[in-house]
This record gives sequence, C-alpha cells and structure tokens, in this order.
Amino acid sequence: MRVGYYQFDCVFGEVKRNLDQVSQALSNVSADLLVLPEFLSSGYQFISKQEVLDLAEPVPDGPTTQRLMEIARARNMVLVGGLAERARDHVYNSAVAVGPNGLIGCYRKTHLFFEETLFFAPGDTGFHVWDIGQARIGVMVCFDWFYPEAARTLALKGADILCHPSNLVLPYCPDGMVTRCLENRVFSITANRIGAEERGGKKSLTFIGSSEVVTPCGQVLERALRDKEALAVVEIDPAEARKKSLNPYNDLLADRRPALYQAS
Amino acid sequence: MRVGYYQFDCVFGEVKRNLDQVSQALSNVSADLLVLPEFLSSGYQFISKQEVLDLAEPVPDGPTTQRLMEIARARNMVLVGGLAERARDHVYNSAVAVGPNGLIGCYRKTHLFFEETLFFAPGDTGFHVWDIGQARIGVMVCFDWFYPEAARTLALKGADILCHPSNLVLPYCPDGMVTRCLENRVFSITANRIGAEERGGKKSLTFIGSSEVVTPCGQVLERALRDKEALAVVEIDPAEARKKSLNPYNDLLADRRPALYQAS
Repeated sequence: MRVGYYQFDCVFGEVKRNLDQVSQALSNVSADLLVLPEFLSSGYQFISKQEVLDLAEPVPDGPTTQRLMEIARARNMVLVGGLAERARDHVYNSAVAVGPNGLIGCYRKTHLFFEETLFFAPGDTGFHVWDIGQARIGVMVCFDWFYPEAARTLALKGADILCHPSNLVLPYCPDGMVTRCLENRVFSITANRIGAEERGGKKSLTFIGSSEVVTPCGQVLERALRDKEALAVVEIDPAEARKKSLNPYNDLLADRRPALYQAS
Repeated sequence: MRVGYYQFDCVFGEVKRNLDQVSQALSNVSADLLVLPEFLSSGYQFISKQEVLDLAEPVPDGPTTQRLMEIARARNMVLVGGLAERARDHVYNSAVAVGPNGLIGCYRKTHLFFEETLFFAPGDTGFHVWDIGQARIGVMVCFDWFYPEAARTLALKGADILCHPSNLVLPYCPDGMVTRCLENRVFSITANRIGAEERGGKKSLTFIGSSEVVTPCGQVLERALRDKEALAVVEIDPAEARKKSLNPYNDLLADRRPALYQAS
C-alpha cells in the first residue's frame, strides 16, 4: 500500500488558491492514501468569530470537501485533510476522509488547542475507524496527539494507520508520534504545514513542517524538513499493524490491565 | 528538592555485594529522593523458578528492603528501588519506596516483560501515589512505561514525580519518557542499570543505561551514558508538576474528554 503526505504553505483565507495548489501538487501522484494538513484550505490563525463563520463550510457540500472528492476520484486514492466545518449553529475543527466514491467520514477535533477554543466547538464525534479496503484508518487532528487516549482509542477500535492532519507550532510532536506508534503498534501519517501566519496584531505562528510516516516499530520512514514543501509517498504493509505480538510472551493489547488503570 | 538516580552494574545473585555497592556509592550523597534500578540486588536474568524463589525476599523484612531503609535513615533521604518480592505463594517484580522512618510503600509491576512472565505473578497492587513531604511520588517499573495508562493513572492520582526503576534493554524508553512527562506534566526519574547478563545458555542481554531526570516540560535535566556507572542529583521544584495549565486556554487534565475515550 502506498501512503504519504503533502506538506505545504497555504495562504490565509485564499480557499480557492490553496485548493488549486493541492490539486496541482497531486495531479501526478500515485498513492492509495494521502494525508493533508489541518485547515488546509482556510489557513489557521482566525481572529474573529465572523471570520470563522465566513470560512467554515458544510461537509460534504462545501468547496473543500468537494474538491478533495474530485481529486480522490481522479487519482483513485483516499485523502484525509482538515477544514473548518459549519454544522447548524456550531463550527468545528474537522477532518474529512474521502475516496473515489465520495465522503468516507468526518471527524471533529476532540482536543482544541489555544485560541481554537475561542472559535470552535469541541468535537462531538469521538474517534472512529474506517475500513478503506487496504487498511483501517483512524483520524486525529494536531493537538489530539498530546492525549494518549486518542491514539489508544483508535488502536483499540482497530486502526492500522493514524491519519493526522496538523498545524503544529510546538516542537514535540514528531518524536511524540514515534511513541504513539510504538505503544499502539500502528502506522501514523502526520501531515503538517509550513510557513508562518501573523494576523490582526497577534503573535506570529511558525509551523514546524516535519511531516512524517512512522511504522508500528517506531521507525520514521519519511520525515519532511521544517520549512520546505514536500510530497512523500512510501510503501507500507498495513498488516504489520495487526501483529500486536511484541515477542513470544507479550501481546500489546491483550497485556493491558484496565482494571488497574484510572480512566477519568 | 534534590532528586536523582544511581545507575550501576550489579552481579547476578550476589545480593550482599550489590547492596554493599549501593551503600558505598550513596555514603556521601546528599539528596531528598534517589531512584535505583529494577532488581537492584538480585540481577535480572532468572533462569528457573527455584532461582527466583531463592532470591526473592519478603517486604519489608528481607535484606534488600532492610538495607535500603538503613541507608535512607543514615542519609535522611527517600529511596526507590526494585527487588524480587516473595509474598505467600507468589513472587512479584516489585519496587519499594523507603524513607528515614521505614517502608513507605511497595508497588508490584503491572506489565511484565518477556520471560518475566514465566517467573513472576502480574502485579496486583495497582498504581499508588505517596506523599513524601516535599512531593507526591508514584512508582512504575521498567516496561510499565510502554503503557501510557500507567503514567496517566499516577498523574490522575496526583503524582508530581514518576519514580521508574528499570532494567531496560530496548532503546525506546529514554525518549518515550519525555513524551510521558509532557503528556502528564510530571517529572520522571528513570534509574536503569548497565552491563550485560548471559545466563544458562540464554541470549545475552545488554542493559542500556541512559538513566535520566525529565521535567514536566520534557526537558532532560540529566541523562547518563549507556555504559558508565553514574550517580546524578539535580535540583527540581516539584510544584512545577502541579501547574497543569499549558497556556491561558488549555488545562492538561481538565481538557481530557473521558466520555470519548475507549478504556478497555
């Protein structure tokens, strides 16, 4: 199975421009699953609720999901990427998974970071696993990585690959995802953006790139640079994520002891 | 508060020799809390149940706990270290915490690794936090680090410092503990051993040293070499572990969303 990420710099508010860039970059790629960043078409640093409402889109009828479905159909691949989702009275930091036949699912970010809490409602979907034929994928968005319960929940539900659209600014996640893959024996694909945003007099944010594909044994198959656009596709065998045996005496998930854990 | 670790090479089965080495090494140290490796007095690679029974000790009446209590009293410090514990019909891979006034608590390793499963009973104590005056400490042993639920349970129960006696052979833990500290905003002290064991025709095990003290912000304050004896003591402020605010909008533990997690 061929999986990867597209890391790029988007321009705040320029939805069509950003989607055109994605279309262009993916126009010759051959892959089964490609992950794109969080807020891939809107940009990240919202400064007012009105701005969020103006840029948020319904799923699947908004321009971002429609364009991703179009690319997925044309390239015969599954795409996962993030967008501001409008649903009734709420706006969510969401990520959609789309394939050649259309929308596969929509995940609403569980753990909002920093000023996202001012503009978005906490996700209400929970964590889900979707079977895309060659693998079972789960989606978590950016800061969700910081909570081990997110990746663990997806692994317990049978995810082979964590698809992880991100707009990371702190430095910890690329190494942290190695731990997430080891402790759950799953693959992960983190797609981060690059560039910087400074809007409305707010503190400038610099995104750390470093998109990566990590194996269930914690091997980093690909890691992008911090500041360069990058499209990477690598071959993986998702069946590796279903071997939860660590050695002849330890089975990762069977050896858990929930009766001794405190969960809340 | 002054905390640290003592990393050394012990000799299998030579309990008195190993305890003498610890006594000698700690005879001039000034610290409030010092962590020692797993199986600090017996060695690691047991090859028969009889051998385990011969080396396992009751807590607190066995020679290891008694000697640690003696050192703790003489040096006016808290010590945490691992031993094979015999209790009625069972033998556990345990760690004791002792202070100037004697035994503080005993933790029995929850997640046994590899051939430990042949010789030891899975721990039945669960994870506990003990208030030692200057800080609240929790104990987890070696492979427990691999299960995020262990450190999370201790953090939810109020631990400021994870005391982590280890006999690590795989390379992942030193970086993995950085993630554990970040995701729980706690300190950790991992005390690993060095050297190698090859017993009864079994595969040789080389222990990776790399003992370390990590802060709630993921900073490695001290990390020992892979193959050198090391005694390190650093100054920390345990109150840092009680500030669970990540920024003005995020509180680490309050932002958890247990209703969306799958715990078993």
